Amino acid sequence: MIILGVDPGLTRCGVGVVEAGAFRRLSFIHVDVVRSDPHESQDLRLLHIYNGLCAKLDEFSPDAVSIERVFAQSNRNTVLGTAQAAGLAMLAAAQRTIPVALHTPTEAKLAITGNGQAEKIQVERMVTRILNLNTLPKPADAADALALAICHALRPSGALQGGEREQHLTPAQRQWAEATRKATHGRGVRRGM
Amino acid sequence: MIILGVDPGLTRCGVGVVEAGAFRRLSFIHVDVVRSDPHESQDLRLLHIYNGLCAKLDEFSPDAVSIERVFAQSNRNTVLGTAQAAGLAMLAAAQRTIPVALHTPTEAKLAITGNGQAEKIQVERMVTRILNLNTLPKPADAADALALAICHALRPSGALQGGEREQHLTPAQRQWAEATRKATHGRGVRRGM
Repeated sequence: MIILGVDPGLTRCGVGVVEAGAFRRLSFIHVDVVRSDPHESQDLRLLHIYNGLCAKLDEFSPDAVSIERVFAQSNRNTVLGTAQAAGLAMLAAAQRTIPVALHTPTEAKLAITGNGQAEKIQVERMVTRILNLNTLPKPADAADALALAICHALRPSGALQGGEREQHLTPAQRQWAEATRKATHGRGVRRGM
Repeated sequence: MIILGVDPGLTRCGVGVVEAGAFRRLSFIHVDVVRSDPHESQDLRLLHIYNGLCAKLDEFSPDAVSIERVFAQSNRNTVLGTAQAAGLAMLAAAQRTIPVALHTPTEAKLAITGNGQAEKIQVERMVTRILNLNTLPKPADAADALALAICHALRPSGALQGGEREQHLTPAQRQWAEATRKATHGRGVRRGM
């Protein structure tokens, strides 16, 4: 299963591609940044980002696209451009009938390091280790896109199919599954008690 | 000159088309709403809005697209979807090399009623009068899209070409031109004095 992660942005849009094999073995395929020129008009910038994302989707034909979920509370200066870039990634995937998943930065950090509040460098190091890379992935900020792809591969449900069940989860995955359950069933409220 | 206005939204995206003839005479061509189902996934909703907007652009082949400018300060519940819909409209226009203009709601109200704080019903009535319609445009919320198209046609520069100059501006246009100048040259700071 090939997963393409997108760290959305209007100036720099990270793209990371991994392959999830048997027993959750993950291999690195590709990492890059699709750029647009901040001096160009917004419509042309969106067109360049969209064309760049389409080219990546057509090159790697992923089975799923994992995009960072954008929140309205984020940095006001960039949040609209970030949301628009995320929208273009969703559009490009939907046009190719590729399933789309949205993951929060906290989910990605938790899945990869076991700590939803991990520092950027910790995430980069774990991405490097998980993908058996010799050096930190470059460009550095595209590591987030790889993290999103890995996050989707390691998520408690979905990728773990065909006999793999919760007893095979890593401690980080178990913690994540627990956090997801709590979030879904109300904020830590004990039910049925 | 045919102008297509877009009032962006993920659930309801207003589209209004007007023709700007000689002496700023404006004629109504079309008004409609492109919709997406809130129960569908976000990627499919964006795809439907994009396809709907592309169909309108291909049907009316506008010379310009006028889109409401979205601000990060807007309603937090809908601002990201609104920004994404605006992004799709920009993308669809850029793919057809149609020039894009962004106008704020205040600009549109000012251009049409002479009052940047005008009520919705005032804008609707003036849109009806300017376009010589017998009744208020329907669907009602698509009147904003017509207002954006009209706003672009009546803007102080651009539509006023070929001998038409500032002495031919309406009082509303003069007020708008003045407001634009102030905004461009600093917030009301008198320069060169």
